[in-house]
Amino acid sequence: MPADHAARRARLRALLDGAGVRSLLVTDLLNIRYLTGFTGSNAALLVDGAGDDRTVVCTDGRYVTQIAEQVPGLRVEIARGSARALIELAVAENVDSVGFESHVVTVEQLEQWQALPGAVPLVPAPRLVEQLRMIKDEFEVGQLRAACAAADAALADLIARGGLRPGRTEREVGRELESLMLDHGANGISFETIVAAGANSAVPHHRPTDAVLADGDFVKLDFGAEVGGYHSDMTRTYVLGRAADWQREVYDLVAAAQAAGRAALAPGALARDVDAAARAVIVEAGHGELFLHGLGHGVGLEIHEAPGIGQLGTGTLSVGEAVTVEPGVYFEGRGGVRIEDTLVVRDDEPELLTLTTKEFTVV
Amino acid sequence: MPADHAARRARLRALLDGAGVRSLLVTDLLNIRYLTGFTGSNAALLVDGAGDDRTVVCTDGRYVTQIAEQVPGLRVEIARGSARALIELAVAENVDSVGFESHVVTVEQLEQWQALPGAVPLVPAPRLVEQLRMIKDEFEVGQLRAACAAADAALADLIARGGLRPGRTEREVGRELESLMLDHGANGISFETIVAAGANSAVPHHRPTDAVLADGDFVKLDFGAEVGGYHSDMTRTYVLGRAADWQREVYDLVAAAQAAGRAALAPGALARDVDAAARAVIVEAGHGELFLHGLGHGVGLEIHEAPGIGQLGTGTLSVGEAVTVEPGVYFEGRGGVRIEDTLVVRDDEPELLTLTTKEFTVV
Repeated sequence: MPADHAARRARLRALLDGAGVRSLLVTDLLNIRYLTGFTGSNAALLVDGAGDDRTVVCTDGRYVTQIAEQVPGLRVEIARGSARALIELAVAENVDSVGFESHVVTVEQLEQWQALPGAVPLVPAPRLVEQLRMIKDEFEVGQLRAACAAADAALADLIARGGLRPGRTEREVGRELESLMLDHGANGISFETIVAAGANSAVPHHRPTDAVLADGDFVKLDFGAEVGGYHSDMTRTYVLGRAADWQREVYDLVAAAQAAGRAALAPGALARDVDAAARAVIVEAGHGELFLHGLGHGVGLEIHEAPGIGQLGTGTLSVGEAVTVEPGVYFEGRGGVRIEDTLVVRDDEPELLTLTTKEFTVV
Repeated sequence: MPADHAARRARLRALLDGAGVRSLLVTDLLNIRYLTGFTGSNAALLVDGAGDDRTVVCTDGRYVTQIAEQVPGLRVEIARGSARALIELAVAENVDSVGFESHVVTVEQLEQWQALPGAVPLVPAPRLVEQLRMIKDEFEVGQLRAACAAADAALADLIARGGLRPGRTEREVGRELESLMLDHGANGISFETIVAAGANSAVPHHRPTDAVLADGDFVKLDFGAEVGGYHSDMTRTYVLGRAADWQREVYDLVAAAQAAGRAALAPGALARDVDAAARAVIVEAGHGELFLHGLGHGVGLEIHEAPGIGQLGTGTLSVGEAVTVEPGVYFEGRGGVRIEDTLVVRDDEPELLTLTTKEFTVV
């Protein structure tokens, strides 16, 4: 199933009236990719409320061939300053008002646009495309599923070949895991892989160092694959060699919290209630102050996107949202555990896209 | 020699009067890194014209330890919304006016700041730090030299181990080259490596595919290493197996253009004249229309930064600017050549940081 960009543009059109604009100038490149499929590094898109007949995409001379292939259904303009060219077009064609992405456009850009001849009103209209992007269509879920599968396969391969063993450095493990994701079908990696061994596992976002993995260490791996522009995100924490009782205990606690968070992922649930469901498990065990971050976040064309699932999350979840669930407990100087899956909110129970086991595992 | 962040802040202070502001709110993370050494993912910096005593850096709770280590000499505030917290501080301390980076701050952010209680005037003051960053200090040149050396060593290693040979795919070569850069001291890669074989070498910014390298192909490699946040950028084009006469001719032409561009890199030269010096060589050979892009760009904390060296480049070069010189000639459907070095403008002749030979080479 290919991506249906025209359907996405139609959904965007339905939001324009509510935002008080007749058209929207889209300048965020990921939003343009979402609405048209174009992947070049310079573009602007003027979505007219009247329909695709009056909608125009603009890029520069480097992408003449590419945009014709990727965006066959829309009028294309070629110009160096794409956004400026489309505003000039809107002026020439007497468009009533142009909404713009005020969360993306800089103050300097707006000053420059406002200084252009003509007088089309430029109206802030933030986050309309992001609102659509929260709900993944089945094409997008397919891409996310493939990205999660590449990450799962890479981790399985790493462990099968003995890549997770005492004596190696965090950096070596990270590089091998990244390389294996590419071997297993990723187009790229989602973000710099976190490999955190021993006491480093207590640092939530530790960058891999030359620290050497040792027997008895927790090893926390947080990584993701990118497929077709979509990002997966997963964390697993293992023990090397032989596990101590405290390690089993903290692992079981985080696993229970993670299961509670997943179980709370239902359409209509408040984001902060999902966070609270997982957090309650950790708080009841007396370690609430060691769960230092929010429970999760949306994933898609960005590795972090809406919705946020944390203590301040005021939104409610909807069917089709793709999110992570990733509680952690961190004992400074000793070690920590985080367990993270990527899931899609469904009518009944959420669909788990990360399929690697979450059983307590000693490697 | 460590980076002298206090000296950089002093140079920034000297620009505030000219920009009509008493202080500058810096929110671009690379600019904050440049001015303080802080590398976290959330920060704001209020540089007060009165001196470092009144200058404050802010980040959130995740970075309490890190900021104390990286920025020992400045007052630190911890708050989740860093920029907002510093504006509130400016209001509380009756600062006259706060400049802000209007080329970075979005329209939405400014609206939110303007809605804060108090009435400190927020004044657009774009690109002040970028202006300083154009001129590299010797610490920065040292980082760039190390980044260029890692890329040079990786390429030499790739060729020495027979990594560039018929039968491999562009993607395989790119992955090996990236891996070798890390082996040779890079902290990361500057950008996705370009490996373009045969007809693909005629595409200026080709993404590596599963296309297979064949005897007689041009193979164009455009890649760079990152060390300490600084980016190198180089391109070499080889012939596999046996070279045809037309390949030698186009290579020699591009090499002559590149030498002319390097020779023109002098303090006081207009950027467009440097571009013209290289372009003239290609135009005289009758191929002006095949040199599809500008001659070069600044490199540093970003892979592309000021100054641009192209046909429209109105600035003049100064001692200490680090730039690329990268002419190319591209025969669509047949193949192309680009040769690129990273250099530093010096009083006498430019310092070449990319040390790999530019002799015509058949591998």
